[in-house]
Amino acid sequence: MKKSFTRLSDGRELIYYDESDAGPRDAPDRRDLAPLTTESEVRYDPVMDEWVIVASHRQGRTYLPPVELCPLCPSREGRLTEIPEPDYDVVVFENRFPSLTSDPCVGESELTALTRRLPGVGRCEVVCFTSDHDGSLGHLGQSRVRTIVDVWADRTEALSRLDGVEQVMPFENRGDQIGVTLSHPHGQIYAYPFVTPRMTRKLASARRHTDRTGDCLFCALVAAELAAEARVVSTSPGWVAFVPAAARWPYELHLYPLRHLPDLPSLNDRERDGLAALVGDVLRRFDGLFGDPMPYILAVQQAPVRQDRALAHLHLELTSPRRARSKLKYLAGSETAGGVFINDILPEVAAERLRAAAGTPAAGP
Amino acid sequence: MKKSFTRLSDGRELIYYDESDAGPRDAPDRRDLAPLTTESEVRYDPVMDEWVIVASHRQGRTYLPPVELCPLCPSREGRLTEIPEPDYDVVVFENRFPSLTSDPCVGESELTALTRRLPGVGRCEVVCFTSDHDGSLGHLGQSRVRTIVDVWADRTEALSRLDGVEQVMPFENRGDQIGVTLSHPHGQIYAYPFVTPRMTRKLASARRHTDRTGDCLFCALVAAELAAEARVVSTSPGWVAFVPAAARWPYELHLYPLRHLPDLPSLNDRERDGLAALVGDVLRRFDGLFGDPMPYILAVQQAPVRQDRALAHLHLELTSPRRARSKLKYLAGSETAGGVFINDILPEVAAERLRAAAGTPAAGP
Repeated sequence: MKKSFTRLSDGRELIYYDESDAGPRDAPDRRDLAPLTTESEVRYDPVMDEWVIVASHRQGRTYLPPVELCPLCPSREGRLTEIPEPDYDVVVFENRFPSLTSDPCVGESELTALTRRLPGVGRCEVVCFTSDHDGSLGHLGQSRVRTIVDVWADRTEALSRLDGVEQVMPFENRGDQIGVTLSHPHGQIYAYPFVTPRMTRKLASARRHTDRTGDCLFCALVAAELAAEARVVSTSPGWVAFVPAAARWPYELHLYPLRHLPDLPSLNDRERDGLAALVGDVLRRFDGLFGDPMPYILAVQQAPVRQDRALAHLHLELTSPRRARSKLKYLAGSETAGGVFINDILPEVAAERLRAAAGTPAAGP
Repeated sequence: MKKSFTRLSDGRELIYYDESDAGPRDAPDRRDLAPLTTESEVRYDPVMDEWVIVASHRQGRTYLPPVELCPLCPSREGRLTEIPEPDYDVVVFENRFPSLTSDPCVGESELTALTRRLPGVGRCEVVCFTSDHDGSLGHLGQSRVRTIVDVWADRTEALSRLDGVEQVMPFENRGDQIGVTLSHPHGQIYAYPFVTPRMTRKLASARRHTDRTGDCLFCALVAAELAAEARVVSTSPGWVAFVPAAARWPYELHLYPLRHLPDLPSLNDRERDGLAALVGDVLRRFDGLFGDPMPYILAVQQAPVRQDRALAHLHLELTSPRRARSKLKYLAGSETAGGVFINDILPEVAAERLRAAAGTPAAGP
C-alpha cells in the first residue's frame, strides 16, 4: 500500500492510499476554496454525565447533490471535486464540514456553575472506498476491503497521536433513509476528545465483569454466543458475527475477533483478511435480506487511546433501522426519552434470516 | 373529573375521563375482537447493562390508516372504533399492540450464561386527548391540558400499583416524520418492569451530586439556568422551560417544577395549572418555529416507583429532530454507535428563536 500526502486548496489534508504504485499523486486542487472557520464546541451535560458536540457551522453542508455534482468522484476536466486526481483506490481527507477539528475558534468557558464548554478539538475524516460512484462496500471484493481495513488501522494510529484525541471511531452510514447526504461509497472517521458514552458504558460493564470473574466480558460473550449457536450468522478466520441476544435494532450484527485485542492496529495479517472477508459477507447478507441496498450503520468499537486498553476488546457493530421491506424503525418516546429500545424482530429470527440471505457475490477478487 | 371504567370486546380496559358528568358511559364495544396473545419479553444486555424489549407480535400493527378509518375517533353508526361511545373528553385504554402487558406468554429463561430473558410484564396505554381528529395537544386550551395532566397523574398512581412496575412514563409522539402511525391527537403511557436506562443515568448523576454537595442536582440546574437567563424560554406559576446547555436535539426544551417533587401525583393544584399552561405554551412555540405542525416527542421523566424517590426531581423533555424547514436530524454513526450527539444549532440560538415564536393562540379556554 502506497501513501501519498497532499493538501486541498483550503488547507485540508488528503491522503491517497494506492494498492499499487500508480505513479505520483500530485494533481493540485484547482478550486480555490476559502478556508472555513469551524465553530465547534463540546458541552458537558451534568444530568446525563456525557459530552455533546455543538457544531453550528454545519447547517449549510452539502445535501444530496445530483450524481454529476458528486464531490467524492475523481476530478475530471471541467468537474473539480474533493479529489484532485483523475482516479484513486482509497482516499482519506478532512471533512469540509467537520464536527471536530484541530483548531476550532471557540474558547473554554463556564456556561453555568454545572456546565462547561470546551473547544471541539479532534478530527473528522472522510474515507472514499472506491472511485466508482455506484459501488458499495459489500461488493468491492475482499482485496479492496482489506485495503480499507489497513486504512482504518493506519488512521487509527495517526489520529491517536493528535493532541487531545481520546477515541478513534471509523464508521460508515449508508442509505438516504438514515440521512446520508452523499451516495458515493464512503465512510467517516471521528477522532473524539473524550471516550464516547457508549464505550464508557461498555468499559464499565467490562470492569465489573473482570472484577468479579477475572475474565474479559467480551471474550465470555463470544464464547457464550458460539456455544449457544442460535444467533451466530457467519464466521471467518479469527472472527465471528452474531446477532446480540438483546439486539436493539431489527437487524443487528456484532463482529468480534476471537483473540482479545484492543483495536484495529493490533490485528495480525490473517485477522485483517478475516475481517475483510466477514465485513463483505455480512454486508452482502444485509443487501440480500430484501434484495436491495439496505440502509445501515457500520462502526468500529475500539479501545480508547489512553485508558482501559487492556479491558477493551475490539468489535464492530452493524445495525439497520429497516424492519420490513417498506418500514423503518423510528426512535420514538420509549427509545429517545427512556433509552428503552423496543425490537419487533426476535434476535433468533433475524439470525435465521441473515443466515439464509447469502446475497449476490462480490464483484472483485 | 368523572371516571368510567369499561372493557373492550377483547378484554382490554378502557377508562373515560369526563370533565363534566356526561351521563353513563356504557356503550358496548360491538366489534367482537379476538383476544390477542402478547409475545413480549425483556432481555438483559450485559455489555450496555440495560434491558431491551423484544415484542415480536407487533409487526402487524396499524400503520397510517386513512382518516375515515381512524381507530381513535369516537364510534358512530357503521364505523366502530376503539372508543365505543359517540363522544368523549379524554379516554385511556390498553394498547391493542402492547410492548408490555400484564400476562405475556413468555417464560423466564437463560439465553446464554450472560443474558437472561424475562416476560415483558408491564402495561402500555393509549391516551386520546380529544375526540377531534384534527386537534393537537398544544391547541386544546388550558382546561383540557389540565385534565390531561390529572389523567397522567391518576394513571401514574394506578400503574405504579401493578405488580412488577418500576417506572411510569407518559409521553406523546407527534408527526409522521418520527414514525407516528396514527394522526389523531393522542399520547401513550408505558409502565416498565425496570427503571429506564436514561432515568438510571440521571439518578446516578444526582446521587454523585448529592453525595458531594448535599443538594439536589436538578434544583441546582434550575437555579443555574434561571440565573444564566440565556436559555430560558418560558415560565408559568411554579414552572420554568429552558433549552438545556448541552442540548442534543436542534430544538429541545426541558420543563422543571421549581419545587423539588418526585412525580406528577405530587403536584399541587396550582402546579398542575402551571404545567398545563406551560405545556400549551411550549407546544405552540414549537409549531410557531416554522409555521406548521412540528414533529416532537414530549415525555414525563418522573421518579421510579420504589427506588430513589427522594433523589428524583420531576421534569418533562420536549425534543424535535427537525433542524430546518425541510431537514431532519438523523441519528447516524456518531449518535447510534458512539452515543455522541452532534447538534447543529447553538442552544442559545434555539432559545432565542423559541422565545420569538409565540405561535397561534390556543382554541379553547
